Amino acid sequence: MDLKTLRIRVCEANRRLSSCGLAPLTWGNVSGIDRESGIVIIKPSGVPYEDLTPENLSAVDVLSGNPVSNGLKPSSDLPAHLEIYRAWPDVAGVVHTHSPFAVSFAQACMPITCMGTTHADTFYGEIPCVRFPDETETGTAYEASAGRIIVNYFKERRIDPMSCPAALASGHGPFVWGHDPESAVDNAYTLEQVSLMALCTLSLNPSVRPLPSYIADRHYFRKHGKNAYYGQR
Amino acid sequence: MDLKTLRIRVCEANRRLSSCGLAPLTWGNVSGIDRESGIVIIKPSGVPYEDLTPENLSAVDVLSGNPVSNGLKPSSDLPAHLEIYRAWPDVAGVVHTHSPFAVSFAQACMPITCMGTTHADTFYGEIPCVRFPDETETGTAYEASAGRIIVNYFKERRIDPMSCPAALASGHGPFVWGHDPESAVDNAYTLEQVSLMALCTLSLNPSVRPLPSYIADRHYFRKHGKNAYYGQR
Amino acid sequence: MDLKTLRIRVCEANRRLSSCGLAPLTWGNVSGIDRESGIVIIKPSGVPYEDLTPENLSAVDVLSGNPVSNGLKPSSDLPAHLEIYRAWPDVAGVVHTHSPFAVSFAQACMPITCMGTTHADTFYGEIPCVRFPDETETGTAYEASAGRIIVNYFKERRIDPMSCPAALASGHGPFVWGHDPESAVDNAYTLEQVSLMALCTLSLNPSVRPLPSYIADRHYFRKHGKNAYYGQR
Amino acid sequence: MDLKTLRIRVCEANRRLSSCGLAPLTWGNVSGIDRESGIVIIKPSGVPYEDLTPENLSAVDVLSGNPVSNGLKPSSDLPAHLEIYRAWPDVAGVVHTHSPFAVSFAQACMPITCMGTTHADTFYGEIPCVRFPDETETGTAYEASAGRIIVNYFKERRIDPMSCPAALASGHGPFVWGHDPESAVDNAYTLEQVSLMALCTLSLNPSVRPLPSYIADRHYFRKHGKNAYYGQR
Repeated sequence: MDLKTLRIRVCEANRRLSSCGLAPLTWGNVSGIDRESGIVIIKPSGVPYEDLTPENLSAVDVLSGNPVSNGLKPSSDLPAHLEIYRAWPDVAGVVHTHSPFAVSFAQACMPITCMGTTHADTFYGEIPCVRFPDETETGTAYEASAGRIIVNYFKERRIDPMSCPAALASGHGPFVWGHDPESAVDNAYTLEQVSLMALCTLSLNPSVRPLPSYIADRHYFRKHGKNAYYGQR
Repeated sequence: MDLKTLRIRVCEANRRLSSCGLAPLTWGNVSGIDRESGIVIIKPSGVPYEDLTPENLSAVDVLSGNPVSNGLKPSSDLPAHLEIYRAWPDVAGVVHTHSPFAVSFAQACMPITCMGTTHADTFYGEIPCVRFPDETETGTAYEASAGRIIVNYFKERRIDPMSCPAALASGHGPFVWGHDPESAVDNAYTLEQVSLMALCTLSLNPSVRPLPSYIADRHYFRKHGKNAYYGQR
Repeated sequence: MDLKTLRIRVCEANRRLSSCGLAPLTWGNVSGIDRESGIVIIKPSGVPYEDLTPENLSAVDVLSGNPVSNGLKPSSDLPAHLEIYRAWPDVAGVVHTHSPFAVSFAQACMPITCMGTTHADTFYGEIPCVRFPDETETGTAYEASAGRIIVNYFKERRIDPMSCPAALASGHGPFVWGHDPESAVDNAYTLEQVSLMALCTLSLNPSVRPLPSYIADRHYFRKHGKNAYYGQR
Repeated sequence: MDLKTLRIRVCEANRRLSSCGLAPLTWGNVSGIDRESGIVIIKPSGVPYEDLTPENLSAVDVLSGNPVSNGLKPSSDLPAHLEIYRAWPDVAGVVHTHSPFAVSFAQACMPITCMGTTHADTFYGEIPCVRFPDETETGTAYEASAGRIIVNYFKERRIDPMSCPAALASGHGPFVWGHDPESAVDNAYTLEQVSLMALCTLSLNPSVRPLPSYIADRHYFRKHGKNAYYGQR
């Protein structure tokens, strides 16, 4: 993918984040990466979605984090995005939002158990809620630590990040990814719907049990992997 | 109804499913049947609602499930639709959605008790929540089993499917039907509103009692059956 | 007010009921009365809001309930509207809806206690939840009984209906009124917002106490009665 | 800022209050002040948002509260706005709304604890819920007392009002401010989202603990004060 196309796609993905209600005010950002050049395109900090153009997005080098073009300052969440791109080569789009129902689970410090097939279609197993950064992490590289804690959580538990493309940062909110910027936004939207459903399900039945794993497996693998049969493939 | 008209109506019904908020992303599908020819028209799998046209919908034979025209692959939920059409000759439209409040009851494995006249106007008695498919059903004809479990539930209890045109599949979500595709979508919309009302009612009063049956009867039969007097008839 | 103007206003009020989300599908109706001629203009039964015109609304005599023009059959809720017009001469607009949060209180058989000034600005004291019709009432004049039970509730307790322009019918939903069709719709909208706020307040604090009565009085009387000072009067 | 510009900005801010759903019907008002002349521009009482023009807004003197131009009667909440402007010279925009989730905390008489970074980005510490006015205050200068109680709450506890630009009035709703009318509306919007998130968080985990203070500090000070690094500065 050439950089011009990537800029157009990341711009459009940021606008969709806003238009589908996931990012009130300027509370959310999408990035995308060109793996060949290692250049990350990301929303500039504090700019309203309606003022975004492909040209005014920020471009940085994934390894150094340095800007590769003059232009606006990147989103302050950039270091978290970079940690994710550096750790996981299959990721090519990252989203951070403050969508209210996912944030509520993050604030409650609760993972989202798989309670149904809407969850299982996109997320294999529970959506984790990772720990708070400690005082040292917060004092130094705060934004990077959000990404690092997520990456370490997945590594330590040997979870394939592409099988569960989201995590909740305790007291903060969701970080979501995908194999391109569009699918990362789709996953962020799915996460918000799954969060609303989980909240209502727990209100109805606080002792609800997880979806039987044989059904979760069936749903996940009908959409993902070599035996997938969902969609026009 | 000729097939061309059916294609137009099913296309429009699918678009309405999306525009009235019942089917985020591509999570929902409507089908309709021409009972004379036995041909079912259904949303193709994974296609966004805005890309649907009467021509690109999938057409299959209701008995064999085989495609009767070249074209896109039908929704992966097709086998559940077919089970319903095969069992119940009065049904001519079927809807499946992941609308959040109905899904919440399905995930909580709770039927929706009739608590008020909004429910009673469309659904006679409780809206059942049918069992999970077992491991064998899930491993073989998973999608068909969703339909079969619903059909068997109604048969075993001798419930007239036209008097309660919806069921919740545990851990999954609603399947809804009607005497044509439009009424199936209306019923899916009503189910979602009834689910929201039931959720809020239970939050206010967890020990709420069902609507007295003489009122439920009155409401149901003023809209349905030979003594109906609602609308311009 | 001449009948032509009344038809235009009632048509517009019905459309607003739908456009502000109070009446999904065809679940709501507004009427207005010309007190001089005793003619009530009301939404016809089962007609979608977008098909309403001033001309196709139904016109009936308030005393007899008989149609005074050829045309569509009036809303099946007409008898409830008529009971309210007959009992209370200051009422000139009536609304019935199935708006979800007000319905939830009706289904929970709970009145809405005055918990705040949003409530007190429009409703003096609690919004009552009146009893179910009994089996005899339901079997004969069902729709009229909804109106009669409300009217009797207010009469027996000597509540001024203009000081609390709404009541919840148990297991059914809200009936709302005003000194013209527009204010009746405003009151229905306020009721729905007040219901949502009361639901959330009770979720946060189940033992919340009513708003102190000296504040409720102040709010109500700054908008109503001869010492009102709200608005451009 | 000249008065003509201020009128345009306050008009636009009032319209945005309505269009972003914070002020149903006419339940909300925005004002702005020109500190040089001491003139406050505010929404007129009871006028629908769509009828507002820069010219028909009300203009009053901040000290006397007297009108400085012929025109419509100012919002009945004016005295509360004036108390805030008189006490706090850094405030140049004030908002009052009845947005439902913030009102629910006010009705429940509960402050909003800082549970996450969405809160911490705008509000340093908990958002207080101040006491009811007593009977004497209510009987005399009711609207002014709402402002006075808030101002005194902050003074007695030595809270910097710019570090927590909102307070909930018990049984009533939110008062919000900012360094200009636009930021006051942004803060009112943020408060409503934070209220929804807090409501859902408490539903999930009633014993949730506040966000660790070192994280709250980090978030607040990355957006505020001399070391801020968020946005394009």
